[in-house]
Amino acid sequence: MDGRSAQGDDTVAARGEFGLIRAVTAGRSQPSTTLLGPGDDAAVVAAPDGRVVVTTDMLVQGVHFRLDWSTPEHVGRRAVAVNLADVAAMGAVPTSVVVGIGCPSDTPAALVTELVDGMAAEAGRARTGVVGGDMVRADQIVISITALGDLGGRPPVTRAGARPGDIVAVCGRLGWAAAGLAVLGRGFRSPVGVVNAQRYPEPPYAAGPTAALAGATAMIDVSDGLLADLGHIAESSDVGIDVQTDRLPVPQKLTDVGSALGADPLHWVLTGGEDHALAATFPSFTDLPEGWIRIGSVLLPDTGVTVDGQAYERETGWEHWR
Amino acid sequence: MDGRSAQGDDTVAARGEFGLIRAVTAGRSQPSTTLLGPGDDAAVVAAPDGRVVVTTDMLVQGVHFRLDWSTPEHVGRRAVAVNLADVAAMGAVPTSVVVGIGCPSDTPAALVTELVDGMAAEAGRARTGVVGGDMVRADQIVISITALGDLGGRPPVTRAGARPGDIVAVCGRLGWAAAGLAVLGRGFRSPVGVVNAQRYPEPPYAAGPTAALAGATAMIDVSDGLLADLGHIAESSDVGIDVQTDRLPVPQKLTDVGSALGADPLHWVLTGGEDHALAATFPSFTDLPEGWIRIGSVLLPDTGVTVDGQAYERETGWEHWR
Repeated sequence: MDGRSAQGDDTVAARGEFGLIRAVTAGRSQPSTTLLGPGDDAAVVAAPDGRVVVTTDMLVQGVHFRLDWSTPEHVGRRAVAVNLADVAAMGAVPTSVVVGIGCPSDTPAALVTELVDGMAAEAGRARTGVVGGDMVRADQIVISITALGDLGGRPPVTRAGARPGDIVAVCGRLGWAAAGLAVLGRGFRSPVGVVNAQRYPEPPYAAGPTAALAGATAMIDVSDGLLADLGHIAESSDVGIDVQTDRLPVPQKLTDVGSALGADPLHWVLTGGEDHALAATFPSFTDLPEGWIRIGSVLLPDTGVTVDGQAYERETGWEHWR
Repeated sequence: MDGRSAQGDDTVAARGEFGLIRAVTAGRSQPSTTLLGPGDDAAVVAAPDGRVVVTTDMLVQGVHFRLDWSTPEHVGRRAVAVNLADVAAMGAVPTSVVVGIGCPSDTPAALVTELVDGMAAEAGRARTGVVGGDMVRADQIVISITALGDLGGRPPVTRAGARPGDIVAVCGRLGWAAAGLAVLGRGFRSPVGVVNAQRYPEPPYAAGPTAALAGATAMIDVSDGLLADLGHIAESSDVGIDVQTDRLPVPQKLTDVGSALGADPLHWVLTGGEDHALAATFPSFTDLPEGWIRIGSVLLPDTGVTVDGQAYERETGWEHWR
């Protein structure tokens, strides 16, 4: 104790790391798939399919998020969302997440509680539970999330199944987080729609299993940018992909922000990451499920990823704000 | 590039974080339970039981490990072992692990490779695979491991099922890591048996499912120290537990180290953590499985955890070397 105010003393160190992680994970509502929740050596989660989908991501303060741009709750939501989007991109229904949190001892306990509130809120949005966690001392805030999912009897939709002649489609927002980043980078805090999109994504979780049911041949979540992530499908599937810009929706909101900042909104849509939309390929005869929009075609492998039949000249790799 | 030698330039930054995690996880041998390994949005692992056991732990350089005392390979082994021990302590067979690694950009690529070599070696010792991973930039080395396991049709063995009249038994090493810590703390590097025990545990993974089959009523892995972890069982099960020191094996090696350092080896056995032995309770009529040793009894709840019927006067909580 160093003489700070009573409120300032309510830190991770004062609460005790063990006590705090238990306090923030125990007693939260759990879905029926959580057979044994937090508090024992491990949790037990239903895996009715007989297979389990698993993915993990680590987020670091100052690299993946800034607490002057985002609240702890936003950061918690994002940390869970990026993992659940990976589960959905396999065509699976998310079932649970476990969380690891590293932070300095003088981190306010309230910050950790808000962080876990955000994690639990996003888990709840996908009808999953935070079933376990660990909390440790570290020099900076580090968050590790692992998400599990169930395939419901379907084969996993990998990046490797696209075939020439397939159609390319997306579901979810593209370019919003990039527009929000441009706004925040200029010191603005509005429009709130794009700024919030930069703070945390709202991936269309249900669209993953729906696409799998509709026969998707390959799928990925758009974390690095549409062209970059379609590039992963093209590489894994050994195909070319062409995106038709006249099919790509550029929302009025992005056009407005682009006008205000003198930026090209189509570039955000093509290359902006972190919105965690889903991109997939389908056989050409597919009636696309609700929410999916056709944006291009799968071609022979020689061409790579093209835009309106041409190589895209500007930088395609999404540069995170670092 | 800053003019260092060619060898010194082979850093995480030079290799690229994405490339490195792929290089260190791809192409490693996988058990038959790995249905889809690293490289896609998520992995797919067999869960034949229809339920999956999941646990996560985070380890931080300078808090949980020191690279002047342990090699990167040892640290990787330990990070995986502590998680697989949690899976075993539920009575489950470990099936897979996913790993998150945060490290400074100037971390030598060889260090990361050795770290993952250690993770893969320990996963292999438990016949599981490293099925996925993430690698990010951080100010210090942070490792997050999540382990999955399969219950094989058995109910999970929680901490909450011990009943008065049950016997208490352990399987695996106790006090070895604590003895090793004492040795290292005095600047010695031998005897190698206890020093290596401090560097990485060798949990008896198979003993967890075996104990479950034999009817274990409660189980935990000994990470904080025997008395502290039996205290978790006592609290969760609302029972008392008495440990009989004449039943507790104190290996000659620990006696020798204790004599050399003027320390009590029994104290290491009772309170030393980080060996990740398994402790369990069984119905009194149980023929204990091979490797399990009876060390005490479950009593009515009034007594807490006692040693030879008395409160244990010395500190029971394992203080990690920090």
